[in-house]
Amino acid sequence: MRGERGLLIVISGPSGAGKSTVIAALMRRRDDIRFSVSATTRPPRPGEVDGKDYFFKTREQFARMIAEDAFLEHAEYVGNCYGTPAEAVQRQLDEGYHVLLDIEVQGAAQVLAKRPDAVSVFLAPPSMAELERRLRGRGTDAEEKIAGRLETARAECARARDYTYIVVNDDAEKAAGELDAIITAQLCRSELRNHFILEGDRSI
Amino acid sequence: MRGERGLLIVISGPSGAGKSTVIAALMRRRDDIRFSVSATTRPPRPGEVDGKDYFFKTREQFARMIAEDAFLEHAEYVGNCYGTPAEAVQRQLDEGYHVLLDIEVQGAAQVLAKRPDAVSVFLAPPSMAELERRLRGRGTDAEEKIAGRLETARAECARARDYTYIVVNDDAEKAAGELDAIITAQLCRSELRNHFILEGDRSI
Repeated sequence: MRGERGLLIVISGPSGAGKSTVIAALMRRRDDIRFSVSATTRPPRPGEVDGKDYFFKTREQFARMIAEDAFLEHAEYVGNCYGTPAEAVQRQLDEGYHVLLDIEVQGAAQVLAKRPDAVSVFLAPPSMAELERRLRGRGTDAEEKIAGRLETARAECARARDYTYIVVNDDAEKAAGELDAIITAQLCRSELRNHFILEGDRSI
Repeated sequence: MRGERGLLIVISGPSGAGKSTVIAALMRRRDDIRFSVSATTRPPRPGEVDGKDYFFKTREQFARMIAEDAFLEHAEYVGNCYGTPAEAVQRQLDEGYHVLLDIEVQGAAQVLAKRPDAVSVFLAPPSMAELERRLRGRGTDAEEKIAGRLETARAECARARDYTYIVVNDDAEKAAGELDAIITAQLCRSELRNHFILEGDRSI
């Protein structure tokens, strides 16, 4: 339990932007960040723990949660439903942790519509040429798959201006430092500190 | 000459908030910040250099600059006029430096009205009690003067919510770190990075 309410942080970025590396570097810098646990209708895989890896739900339970507006965002992906349960996120925020939602652009737009107080960050590759180089560099994907990923990335990057911040990942540690600075700065925003001033006024 | 346009940063805070210590600590962290040089009708003191310490102006010159809307803000103080010349600030911003205006709340309001793109930071003492302790700790001021300073500080702190950010100075290095983070975060704001995305689009 920390002192103040945490920040809800939405981070998006195309495949190949290096999101997981940057997030890992950010987690080494700050111990006040938690990931949200998603709900899914996908059956648990061996070793997956309910409430830790996912909240495992039946189709009926998931549909009821949608009806009850219990998700910050939800989507269907290759036949399974995935969603971010608002209540679990709120619990972590109330405990004073910043909650990181690593989410694609459509889901991010849903979250930002429901939670205009969320901090949104788009993690961008230095250029499309560099993104292509990185995707090819993996050496695992067929040409067709790479072309598809690049097309998706292009569409996602076109929505980067919908985010409050754009962090360009030309160096993972530098990008993590910028994310770290964004969190520190957001915590200094005056609308979050009004209580301080009011208390200050009273203390005179 | 640096790559991008710099940020205009307005910082205010009551006497005793520790502004000069925090700013000095910030300048040790970043070499991309410059102070603005004020214009004044006050005569130069021995050793003061025109264009470095101040732009020294006659009353007539100063009045003409006001008429030409050449100041971001100006005020009269114990019989002399002081002002921040917009052109000199703009030159530094265009060279890519962030320009710090250390300015009281009325002047800050003038600047923010003219330059809504400016980043505004209020440096606050941890509490009024602590501010009083600091002002008394100097041991140099008469009781009456301290009471006056506290009254002014109270009025200034009541306007802290007009600033985008509030940095609480309970520790000068921590406060400087927060200012540093605010600058880093502001540089990541998507409205400043649109050109990147547009170039990204074109580069495909």
